[in-house]
Amino acid sequence: MAITTVGLDADDTLWHNETIFRMTQARFRALMADHAEPEFLDARLAEVERRNLALYGYGVKGFTLSLIETAMDIAGGEPPGHVIGDILAAGREMLRHPVEPLPGAEEALAALAERYDLVLITKGDLLHQEQKLAASGLGELFKGVEIVSEKDAATYARVFARYGAGAESAAMAGNSLRSDVLPALEAGAWAAHIPYELTWAHEAADPPHGHPRFAELNSIRDLPAWLDGLG
Amino acid sequence: MAITTVGLDADDTLWHNETIFRMTQARFRALMADHAEPEFLDARLAEVERRNLALYGYGVKGFTLSLIETAMDIAGGEPPGHVIGDILAAGREMLRHPVEPLPGAEEALAALAERYDLVLITKGDLLHQEQKLAASGLGELFKGVEIVSEKDAATYARVFARYGAGAESAAMAGNSLRSDVLPALEAGAWAAHIPYELTWAHEAADPPHGHPRFAELNSIRDLPAWLDGLG
Repeated sequence: MAITTVGLDADDTLWHNETIFRMTQARFRALMADHAEPEFLDARLAEVERRNLALYGYGVKGFTLSLIETAMDIAGGEPPGHVIGDILAAGREMLRHPVEPLPGAEEALAALAERYDLVLITKGDLLHQEQKLAASGLGELFKGVEIVSEKDAATYARVFARYGAGAESAAMAGNSLRSDVLPALEAGAWAAHIPYELTWAHEAADPPHGHPRFAELNSIRDLPAWLDGLG
Repeated sequence: MAITTVGLDADDTLWHNETIFRMTQARFRALMADHAEPEFLDARLAEVERRNLALYGYGVKGFTLSLIETAMDIAGGEPPGHVIGDILAAGREMLRHPVEPLPGAEEALAALAERYDLVLITKGDLLHQEQKLAASGLGELFKGVEIVSEKDAATYARVFARYGAGAESAAMAGNSLRSDVLPALEAGAWAAHIPYELTWAHEAADPPHGHPRFAELNSIRDLPAWLDGLG
């Protein structure tokens, strides 16, 4: 079946995101330098984030709350006062951070939009994702924007039914094997993995090499040619 | 035009919400009793929430961050350590709080679902709203769920176009004049105000008495009869 609909992940596919989280984490290490070694701090933060994921979901606000909780844990409930204030400020800065589109993203989307219906499919804080899309200037290229709490096969089946003829005539592209590729393939769609320079540990997975509807691409610049070749 | 689609607000229309925020705020007053008078604390919190609204949006996570920021402000950057831990715990409890449907909500929705396409239209944290809907047991009655960052006339026009023949053949019902009633009327839909026992100051507005497509109802139990009478 010909592909009519293309789903695109946002964070680390269209613009930088993990880099900004890592910068904040580096700042957190500096703030907590008197209390914990960096490796210990990172491990505790990862543990707190994992524990809170089902409650907070994805995004900057939940991350900020997990940073504060980690600081409390490590400082025995008595962190230096300025640490909490600095974490709050870091969280607000993340929310205000300018959107930096990845190289080639705008050109690739413009080419894709001429041939396919594009849908942005992303996790994270609803308001923040909308603000980033608006700031990116890419919003007009999308037929739909779906900010979702979880990216599983049912999510892709639902979204591709809404914006097209179902998963069989759709493709998904993104930087996360776990969230963008594997569940889209499971739903029956095509899927392209476009790795980002960094991967959040929670999103790591093994690539489905040899899967007939899967491709590994070096850049979003290669997406239009791959899709056109499927027809 | 006959009404085919009915939009329903969730928090304080289908289930208790503001009550839970107020309980947490009372707990916050107790936590901060040594540092600030209740009235002063409430005023500072309202100011912090207002300042953060454009950045955090609506929902428990942003509220928790605003509570922590208020505690920091008031305690001169050095709040007692347990206060921050207690606020984090209070925020997590809000997210885990059981959903309590309002009296008559389930029966009214069941009756409405037989005659109209129902769409849940709500602000707040994406994941939390989905969890509350799932916990309420009401999810099956809705044709669509739209968790939005802002409820304005454009939002209602878009949602009612997606789930029906546009705002002219749709009605919205909810407890907030500012978010549920006025923008829905502006979009061209009918709108019913069903007051809750408490109103968040940010949501207060004057009722549009005399508007030909507006009704003030005492309870969600009165919604089916009002809608049926419009046809």
